[in-house]
Amino acid sequence: MADPRFFITTPPRTLADLAQIAEAQLADGVDPERLIDDVSALETAGPGHIAFLANRKYVRSFMESKAGACLVEPELADRAPEGMAVLICDRPRRGFARIAAAFHPDRQEEPGIHPSAVIDPSARLGKGCRVEAHVVIGPNVEIGESCQIGANSVIERGVVIGENCVIGANATLSYCLIGKRVQIASGAVIGNTGFGYDLDPSGRTKVPHLGRVIIEDDVEIGANSTIDRGSGPDTVIGQGTVIDNLVMIAHNVRIGRGCILVAQVGIAGSAQLGNYVTIAGQAGVVNHANIGDRVIIAAKSGVLANVPADSIFAGYPAMPIKEWRRLVGQQRMAFKGKGNRDE
Amino acid sequence: MADPRFFITTPPRTLADLAQIAEAQLADGVDPERLIDDVSALETAGPGHIAFLANRKYVRSFMESKAGACLVEPELADRAPEGMAVLICDRPRRGFARIAAAFHPDRQEEPGIHPSAVIDPSARLGKGCRVEAHVVIGPNVEIGESCQIGANSVIERGVVIGENCVIGANATLSYCLIGKRVQIASGAVIGNTGFGYDLDPSGRTKVPHLGRVIIEDDVEIGANSTIDRGSGPDTVIGQGTVIDNLVMIAHNVRIGRGCILVAQVGIAGSAQLGNYVTIAGQAGVVNHANIGDRVIIAAKSGVLANVPADSIFAGYPAMPIKEWRRLVGQQRMAFKGKGNRDE
Amino acid sequence: MADPRFFITTPPRTLADLAQIAEAQLADGVDPERLIDDVSALETAGPGHIAFLANRKYVRSFMESKAGACLVEPELADRAPEGMAVLICDRPRRGFARIAAAFHPDRQEEPGIHPSAVIDPSARLGKGCRVEAHVVIGPNVEIGESCQIGANSVIERGVVIGENCVIGANATLSYCLIGKRVQIASGAVIGNTGFGYDLDPSGRTKVPHLGRVIIEDDVEIGANSTIDRGSGPDTVIGQGTVIDNLVMIAHNVRIGRGCILVAQVGIAGSAQLGNYVTIAGQAGVVNHANIGDRVIIAAKSGVLANVPADSIFAGYPAMPIKEWRRLVGQQRMAFKGKGNRDE
Repeated sequence: MADPRFFITTPPRTLADLAQIAEAQLADGVDPERLIDDVSALETAGPGHIAFLANRKYVRSFMESKAGACLVEPELADRAPEGMAVLICDRPRRGFARIAAAFHPDRQEEPGIHPSAVIDPSARLGKGCRVEAHVVIGPNVEIGESCQIGANSVIERGVVIGENCVIGANATLSYCLIGKRVQIASGAVIGNTGFGYDLDPSGRTKVPHLGRVIIEDDVEIGANSTIDRGSGPDTVIGQGTVIDNLVMIAHNVRIGRGCILVAQVGIAGSAQLGNYVTIAGQAGVVNHANIGDRVIIAAKSGVLANVPADSIFAGYPAMPIKEWRRLVGQQRMAFKGKGNRDE
Repeated sequence: MADPRFFITTPPRTLADLAQIAEAQLADGVDPERLIDDVSALETAGPGHIAFLANRKYVRSFMESKAGACLVEPELADRAPEGMAVLICDRPRRGFARIAAAFHPDRQEEPGIHPSAVIDPSARLGKGCRVEAHVVIGPNVEIGESCQIGANSVIERGVVIGENCVIGANATLSYCLIGKRVQIASGAVIGNTGFGYDLDPSGRTKVPHLGRVIIEDDVEIGANSTIDRGSGPDTVIGQGTVIDNLVMIAHNVRIGRGCILVAQVGIAGSAQLGNYVTIAGQAGVVNHANIGDRVIIAAKSGVLANVPADSIFAGYPAMPIKEWRRLVGQQRMAFKGKGNRDE
Repeated sequence: MADPRFFITTPPRTLADLAQIAEAQLADGVDPERLIDDVSALETAGPGHIAFLANRKYVRSFMESKAGACLVEPELADRAPEGMAVLICDRPRRGFARIAAAFHPDRQEEPGIHPSAVIDPSARLGKGCRVEAHVVIGPNVEIGESCQIGANSVIERGVVIGENCVIGANATLSYCLIGKRVQIASGAVIGNTGFGYDLDPSGRTKVPHLGRVIIEDDVEIGANSTIDRGSGPDTVIGQGTVIDNLVMIAHNVRIGRGCILVAQVGIAGSAQLGNYVTIAGQAGVVNHANIGDRVIIAAKSGVLANVPADSIFAGYPAMPIKEWRRLVGQQRMAFKGKGNRDE
């Protein structure tokens, strides 16, 4: 059960209510008026809980679960243990997420501007914003309605933030235009100058970075991640893309819609990612590379060239994952052969 | 000598005193009343300094050192140069650390709450706490006795911190329960929501993260590291574990006691580490992997599967280090053979 | 054109003026009085813009560009399209950077100390400093003339900062001595204690870190990077070195002059880098390694041993790049051979 120090918990709900929230169907014979208290995982759930099964791998946990109710895909519904109320659902994980959010809605913090915040008189804030203690907002900043700006964050000159955005604590935003419903976690730094120089042992000249960071609607950016502004072109994060913690996005990078960048990924300058691209943790993409739509890059890979759409790459230098798997398999075999001769 | 702008230096101490601090024995003939001014490294030490030798590799530096005194293991004591006072000690590095701390104790900053700190009236702080300028402390936070909270840090709603903790500047803590004597460096972000979604081109649903971060006693966390809270289960960092800078710990990860995570390591969601595990710099552990007690993972390795206790793994995908060394050796040899044919 | 919300734009300038700024020569027949409005990239430039060509790879973009003027090396000047005013220049990128800075000079923020800043009475600040809102400056700090300290940054006890430095927002500086014209981006943490322990299952002893971080003149440090102080020796960043975002520099590291460390690089304890070393993104250097002058380390490499001056290394463990390329080539060939037999 969610710790009440941190989370709100709403009263029990009927299965009929939960089915509606999850866009699920109650299986035959399920009592629509049965009450459920909370969400839980299959392994920890009791009779008052609803769980979900989204991955066939966990079907055993499902069969042994004591959950009172469970969201499950149609084809697995008949594996449910006796007494479990089954809610049939095409996307059980999404249904579960919605039910969890219904039981534990985000706390509605009071709107208002803390008196310790320092806001330039030329800044404009929409209705219903919450600006926490010690926030600093620079000249000509524009913030849409119902935004939250976390304590000790800094929003520098000229930044534009759309409505319903949430900015964490200790974040720094500069040289950026941010869409609606964007979430930027604590410690993130958006809009810093790119890393571009004319270098020569006789001296270094910094290239002025005259572009911006454009963050489209519904983007999420993780804690302590950094996104540099463009050198002339903009750095662009497409609609609905989610970026994990400690990720680095360099100047002029263009990321399409619905991409997923896992923690500690680095995207070098002027690289382009299409739509629905997934880059797993600690992977890197070289500058100017072009990554096609729906590409998946395995964790820790190093992408040194363009990657065609709809492919899965792994390794360093990154190659099609089948090729990489065969290479790894061969190395193992070569090792074993060699090892045998040695011993 | 330690820069007095930053460090306190206490008066000279006798060798008898230092031996007691270090749990060492004075070698035969050493004058227990001889005074030592300070610590230093073997290479830079002079007659007024005490140094240490913990690694046989540096025995030449030891033999040539001008240090007035030196902590050394019993078996190397007879290699000391003439005139050096030898302190025989089973753990010279620990002894040296203790003597260094005696000569240069941490500054005892004055307790008290800076008037610019913003503390919710419902928060409770123990005696002897120091809360620096512009700190923000949210509702129902509980902080134990004698804690230090660095300038501009943010402690969000409901967080519990045990006694004698030190939080650096510009850190952000939320959704976490923290033990005693924990040190969290500047810029760290603890308790952010995990990176979990139901993803689909038709739209994304964020999975509510209803767990916490539990940090047990004596843990240290480095600068700008991030630890996400659990999705339902908690994220747990076990007693005495030390985490370096820029490390990422994802949701639901469980780390045992006495582990060491070096800089820029990433541990993906729901991975489990046993006790006394060492993960060297820039290595990564895949989600749901199970890493046994006392495992060592080499720097930059990518762990893609479970690792049994007491093993040392390296490479990507990570394999037993002997296997990895042979593989690397073979590649070198294959290269050389091939090179010869080519040339 | 640069977004006026973020950037200043100065009036049009004659080609004669621009040639002087860039240390360029107008090609024969170019009208020195022709006016140019702004800088732009070759692909996006119009008749009022000046662009540059620094890389033969982009000569086609140059030949097709609509730019009114272009900076170009002497040997490529005759490839210019008709009507383009050519400025011949040995270092076109540097010339362009200077012209861009002339058209878009950094905003001269007003000097002054924001009333919300908390500055210890013993701190000394030079003339013309700008200290933004909620900055915290500790005892005995010394800051030279004309420095800017970004909002919510923390400068701890005893830190010394030379003249004309720029510190971003939410940065934390401690135990460090900083030269002139140094730029430290938002969220960086300088001077944290190093990661050094005497470890033993029976208990851990922290080694006191009694050194400092020395940052020489003209260094730049990126967002959310961390540089730990030395254990006794100092951590040193040499004159003119540039460090990108999310980089980790451990205790006792010594970096020479004019080095380039790209994003997410990690340098482990006591490693030494010579002058003009380049470490590409996500690469790592093991502790105590010695990297010679002018070495280049490829992205994602893992350097596990010393690297001689003037060499280029890649791979893990890092090897001369020619060797690495042959190894990668062989793996590919072996794969294909094997693949053929399989199919």
